[in-house]
Amino acid sequence: MQAASSSQRIENITLATMQGNGYGLIENAVVDIHGDTIAYVGTSQDAPAPSADMQVIDGKGGLLTPGLIDCHTHLVWAGSRANEFAARLHGASYQEIAEQGGGIAATVKATREASESELLRLAKSRAEALMASGVTTVEIKSGYGLDLANERKQLTVARQLQEVLPLAVQTTLLAAHAVPPEFKGQPDAYIDVVVKEILPKLAAAGLVDAVDAFCENIGFSPAQTERVFQAAKQHKLPIKLHAEQLSNQNGSALAAKYQALSSDHLEHLDEAGVQAMREAGTVAVLLPGAFYFLRETKLPPISLLRDYGVPIAIATDANPGSAPIHNLQLMLQMAATFFRMTPEECLRGVTCNAAQALGLTDRGIIAEGKRADLALWNVQDAAELSYQFGVNPLQQVWFQGLRR
Amino acid sequence: MQAASSSQRIENITLATMQGNGYGLIENAVVDIHGDTIAYVGTSQDAPAPSADMQVIDGKGGLLTPGLIDCHTHLVWAGSRANEFAARLHGASYQEIAEQGGGIAATVKATREASESELLRLAKSRAEALMASGVTTVEIKSGYGLDLANERKQLTVARQLQEVLPLAVQTTLLAAHAVPPEFKGQPDAYIDVVVKEILPKLAAAGLVDAVDAFCENIGFSPAQTERVFQAAKQHKLPIKLHAEQLSNQNGSALAAKYQALSSDHLEHLDEAGVQAMREAGTVAVLLPGAFYFLRETKLPPISLLRDYGVPIAIATDANPGSAPIHNLQLMLQMAATFFRMTPEECLRGVTCNAAQALGLTDRGIIAEGKRADLALWNVQDAAELSYQFGVNPLQQVWFQGLRR
Ligand SMILES: [Zn+2]
Ligand SMILES: [Zn+2]
Repeated sequence: MQAASSSQRIENITLATMQGNGYGLIENAVVDIHGDTIAYVGTSQDAPAPSADMQVIDGKGGLLTPGLIDCHTHLVWAGSRANEFAARLHGASYQEIAEQGGGIAATVKATREASESELLRLAKSRAEALMASGVTTVEIKSGYGLDLANERKQLTVARQLQEVLPLAVQTTLLAAHAVPPEFKGQPDAYIDVVVKEILPKLAAAGLVDAVDAFCENIGFSPAQTERVFQAAKQHKLPIKLHAEQLSNQNGSALAAKYQALSSDHLEHLDEAGVQAMREAGTVAVLLPGAFYFLRETKLPPISLLRDYGVPIAIATDANPGSAPIHNLQLMLQMAATFFRMTPEECLRGVTCNAAQALGLTDRGIIAEGKRADLALWNVQDAAELSYQFGVNPLQQVWFQGLRR
Repeated sequence: MQAASSSQRIENITLATMQGNGYGLIENAVVDIHGDTIAYVGTSQDAPAPSADMQVIDGKGGLLTPGLIDCHTHLVWAGSRANEFAARLHGASYQEIAEQGGGIAATVKATREASESELLRLAKSRAEALMASGVTTVEIKSGYGLDLANERKQLTVARQLQEVLPLAVQTTLLAAHAVPPEFKGQPDAYIDVVVKEILPKLAAAGLVDAVDAFCENIGFSPAQTERVFQAAKQHKLPIKLHAEQLSNQNGSALAAKYQALSSDHLEHLDEAGVQAMREAGTVAVLLPGAFYFLRETKLPPISLLRDYGVPIAIATDANPGSAPIHNLQLMLQMAATFFRMTPEECLRGVTCNAAQALGLTDRGIIAEGKRADLALWNVQDAAELSYQFGVNPLQQVWFQGLRR
């Protein structure tokens, strides 16, 4: 990064402010930054005269968007699942792989065994890959520790990432991700530990920005999920949910009952769930990378979400089991290709709506007073960001006003 | 690139030689390079004593593979189709887009209007994206010029790429890609021009390494395709074919009759076609990016290709209409995910089998006497290359013995 500049002007750009309903485009635009904050947004004609100390940056006709926000990842883990990926392609069943200690159990084991510094090294390389796709804020979930010490370790590493990278991290406690081996067959007993020990202690340590659970027939029941939500509410923590990915458990309606920030996956979401989300202001986070990698065929109910005006976000879901993909630009193309989301919807999904999915009101749009987290792209048409993949059009990123 | 070194040793590596049927792994391996050629391949125990002038490179336990080969691209074009991508997502039909001059007509128009230098600039950024995914040889087709001058321009730019980048280019004349507007409704008259003028002149100019056509109900008929093949054979040029993508035209069997190097796409290939390819030694080039982007559901006949022992290659098909994707690593993951190809098959698809699809016998495997086109990857397991996407494990590339 360059040294902090008290005052910058970015000119010769088109702005996608993401205000209003579409891109919120402003042609021939100027953005002024004072310190870490956006100080002026508008046309070059209307812009105030630049101050003498202002560093003026030529955007060369590029598109300036908010820094991208990846609002659903599981970045902190150890081990590799390439071996079981290969085994599956050679014909092994999920059951056979599970019997050999594969699946999420393999990741839990490797993550528990890994040191903080090793986890940080691994997560850093993944976070850097996301940053190369324009990401300035990333959400990171725990859920491969599944006990107090290891959930703490994962969230500590997530917090450390923002010390070593110009990247903002929001942490989510996902202790209710799977039943750990020491509680096999006793999910309720494990939920006891989650709500009585793990959540209170890690919340008290300031490691938890939100609380999540995996509500699914192969995960936790709605009743178990609700216990997690109640504990979160007691600790005044917002909630999120992995819901309706493989079946309809009415998890989204349950999440909405607790004013969830977001409900995520949603391939099997029904209209009642959509309506509940709408009423609670819950964001629909769609995860096209998991849809792709698991070769799902059931699409999330995009039309219903549109009809009810539920904000749609898009995220990588980066994780070793169902989405070993660390590139948010690819998610824009996949959301357009698989889900037929428009390029405007895709870009809103990784800016304003992703910010809302994290409960963040200081970013996700380009407006005066917001954080100066910005991305400059060498594209003529904002639709390029969802259309083309491989030639990275990212030219420059500002993180809290600093060029990184 | 570093200055040419007469002699290098790469040690502390695992080798995927791609010799035999799988990866052809050698642990604790050493590769010696003399000039632009591989001089020794084997274990460190068996390696000759390094010569005094040898530069020794520590591979740090990484995996050394042949440089990757993208054996099917359309890299040279101008214009953007992002606008029609957006229009389609907003509900416009293909017909409406075609009526507005969209589709391939838009790319032909923009490519005809672009200067050589502008086309080179655009193609270079795409080629650089492919190089970042480990590519050392790329095939580039014409087919957006559709007249002598503009097909010549495209192939000239393709040749120029290897003057400005450390990258080998194989050119393919695809004049029979579509009927140009001036021959609307007269495909046979256009094929006359292709076989009597475009092909002979560009072959004489040394611009054509192979000849291709688009045999499809929306492209050229088998009879028209065969005229192109006959002209290619007269000029002693090898052939390739876009076949069986949207329907079964028995194009692959026709291609095999002319000893085609490859038949490409192949979702609708039947057993007779597979058998004909097997007998002719024709490689099956699969294009998972186009399969993905067009949301195809019919899979190419992988089992049949395996049963008959037809070599399978994988390529990007990079093009503005059906695969705006410039990343070969992603194609490995997509081939595994969509086509259930094993990681070994995926890697063979972009190394030895891709070389065969281009008729190149001097590369695609790591063996003494072959070109020193090599890629070093920071992975423990070769399956990682097909499993994980986003964190680029590429550490170093050698192109004709030079580190780039
Ligand atoms: Zn998730
Ligand atoms: Zn093609």
